[in-house]
Amino acid sequence: MATAADTDAMRRAIELAARGLGSTSPNPVVGCVITDASGHVVGEGYHERAGGPHAEIHALRAAGVLARGGTAYVTLEPCNHTGRTGPCAQALTEAGIARVLYAVADPNPQATGGADTLRAAGVEVAHGLLEDEAEAGNIAWLTSVRLGRPYVTWKYAATLDGRIAAADGTSRWISSPESRADVHRLRAESDAVVVGSGTMRADDPHLAVRGIEGATQPLRVVIDTDAAAVRAGARVLDEAAPTLVAVAQDAAPVPYVTAAGTAHGDTAAPVPAAGEAVPSPEPDAGGPAVLRLPRAERGLSVPALLAALHERGVRSVLLEGGPTLAGSFVAAGAVDRVIGYLAPVLLGAGPAALADAGITTITGALRLHVTHTDRIGTDLRVTATVPKGA
Amino acid sequence: MATAADTDAMRRAIELAARGLGSTSPNPVVGCVITDASGHVVGEGYHERAGGPHAEIHALRAAGVLARGGTAYVTLEPCNHTGRTGPCAQALTEAGIARVLYAVADPNPQATGGADTLRAAGVEVAHGLLEDEAEAGNIAWLTSVRLGRPYVTWKYAATLDGRIAAADGTSRWISSPESRADVHRLRAESDAVVVGSGTMRADDPHLAVRGIEGATQPLRVVIDTDAAAVRAGARVLDEAAPTLVAVAQDAAPVPYVTAAGTAHGDTAAPVPAAGEAVPSPEPDAGGPAVLRLPRAERGLSVPALLAALHERGVRSVLLEGGPTLAGSFVAAGAVDRVIGYLAPVLLGAGPAALADAGITTITGALRLHVTHTDRIGTDLRVTATVPKGA
Repeated sequence: MATAADTDAMRRAIELAARGLGSTSPNPVVGCVITDASGHVVGEGYHERAGGPHAEIHALRAAGVLARGGTAYVTLEPCNHTGRTGPCAQALTEAGIARVLYAVADPNPQATGGADTLRAAGVEVAHGLLEDEAEAGNIAWLTSVRLGRPYVTWKYAATLDGRIAAADGTSRWISSPESRADVHRLRAESDAVVVGSGTMRADDPHLAVRGIEGATQPLRVVIDTDAAAVRAGARVLDEAAPTLVAVAQDAAPVPYVTAAGTAHGDTAAPVPAAGEAVPSPEPDAGGPAVLRLPRAERGLSVPALLAALHERGVRSVLLEGGPTLAGSFVAAGAVDRVIGYLAPVLLGAGPAALADAGITTITGALRLHVTHTDRIGTDLRVTATVPKGA
Repeated sequence: MATAADTDAMRRAIELAARGLGSTSPNPVVGCVITDASGHVVGEGYHERAGGPHAEIHALRAAGVLARGGTAYVTLEPCNHTGRTGPCAQALTEAGIARVLYAVADPNPQATGGADTLRAAGVEVAHGLLEDEAEAGNIAWLTSVRLGRPYVTWKYAATLDGRIAAADGTSRWISSPESRADVHRLRAESDAVVVGSGTMRADDPHLAVRGIEGATQPLRVVIDTDAAAVRAGARVLDEAAPTLVAVAQDAAPVPYVTAAGTAHGDTAAPVPAAGEAVPSPEPDAGGPAVLRLPRAERGLSVPALLAALHERGVRSVLLEGGPTLAGSFVAAGAVDRVIGYLAPVLLGAGPAALADAGITTITGALRLHVTHTDRIGTDLRVTATVPKGA
């Protein structure tokens, strides 16, 4: 039986894990709390970035000899494999940890087995404490392991009557300054931010994180099917964050000029089989990478885009696209979470937040589950998830 | 200085007042709590219906001789005039009440002066305790006194992306059963429920209150400009509640057949001056009343409709119309409060909740103030008010 102290320690571990959101991919976020034999917290840690020590190692270092005979609370099953860092199951055993409570089992076949190793070494092991909360905190990574594609959050800002702009196209500012700041937090927690050519043309967005110290910048992804929306001098081409431009396999070559004035582009590539993502240059400081993808009925293939991003280690995507791109993602079953910033504003005309999702009748509607509603400045933020299998 | 006990008693009076919502018009809702000389509650009351005793009288009756030397907490300044019931200021004095606290001053020139009468009789009088809460609880009546028209609440149910139906027109059910039940509560608290010809044709709505025992039925109002949408056998023509059909002055005569099979209609009326409401028969059990109103650029004149309803004692209107009618009200500056039931559903196509509000650019947007957000079943209910002067 877990005690109240056990629950408190695991809740703290979940809080610690969240600090890594946006900087650990392709790894999960993990938090760890270690208590000594009498139950006092003697070490805390979280996985800060891919390639860095795992949460358990940080916490063990902090605890030192006080870990002996103690308990480790970990949000994810300790790993059993030697990757860039040694296996955590072994480190916990060597430190003399007597008891390990972990919240969520590791679904990654490469890493699983840590619990068995611990048990074989005589450590008491239990699983499932605050499992739902820990799962929610690691949902992007868990989803990406299960589905083989990044976890997609569609973010939009609209009026109460569902408009993202007025009839004449003006939209600055529908949402409050607090909502706009909150979007930077979402970007910082995401591995990639995706927009389409419509948003590119209308807003010339920058898409990098501003105002959050120490934030890891996301990969900026522009879906520019016909290689016509991203122009030299576009704000997304500056050096604030890496950028990837996805174009159709048959689109013209796209020599971009970066803000620094150096040219960087792709060359005519052989057309691969349909559905197959084409390897392309990694982003570098000289300009954006270009990714060539198969066309879909409208725009580019969403599954091919997500597969290519997954291959690059992207585990979470923030979709900031306009109504058409969002509709493509919904139609492809590729939206996992929706975050809507609803401004208490009425317009009565202007484009809606979502279009062309392939839904024609009420029984085909995509039904979500509201997980949070929060007031953000003068706005209302609604967070809803797509039930599994929807 | 008001004590905590004073605040508790006034809060209770505000709760009591709310019980009268929907059944006191053209009067306000009022609640009253009486405590004896040592501060114990000895009487409670509220104004239950127009023509019935005022709140103070109910509470004084309950208190009997215990009122002597006590305090009366009243949500609205006690009246000074002899209407259908005697003046409350006099009743309080005669009962030996030593102190009167009231929350909101009476803006009605006919009723004002109660506080002065009480003071002249040697009663200690103070004003303003929980004034904001009491004002909010009586906002429909206060607004109607100040503006000379009913307080209008626009209610809509939409998806997160602002749609009220799918592309093929299907809409059953976007909102949850709990939201639909909540709408019956709103109807019961309103004096009139208004829809337009679009909703009439699409839904054949009933508009009466169901599922709330003892509810006062609102006046059902259909705006049927060309006298073509309400047909014999329409559900709104049954005897569950009174019905008023508003048509253009130049529309054809409209002989309606009620569900009971009796005919009741209007006759060709002389066309009055523009902007002038035409008196018409009161609703009776035999069928709907017909109101002839001047045309506006689109549909009927909203101010003329509201003036005619006000003249009939309607102090609160629940606008349940579709996007076009709601747009007309917004354009006329005749929406005071918005209650949106947002279902966590995405459609990506279909009609928006609000249309043709006369707003073409973002600086012309109608900006509201969110007062409440509540989870209703699986939905989210957003309540927002239009700031004065907007």
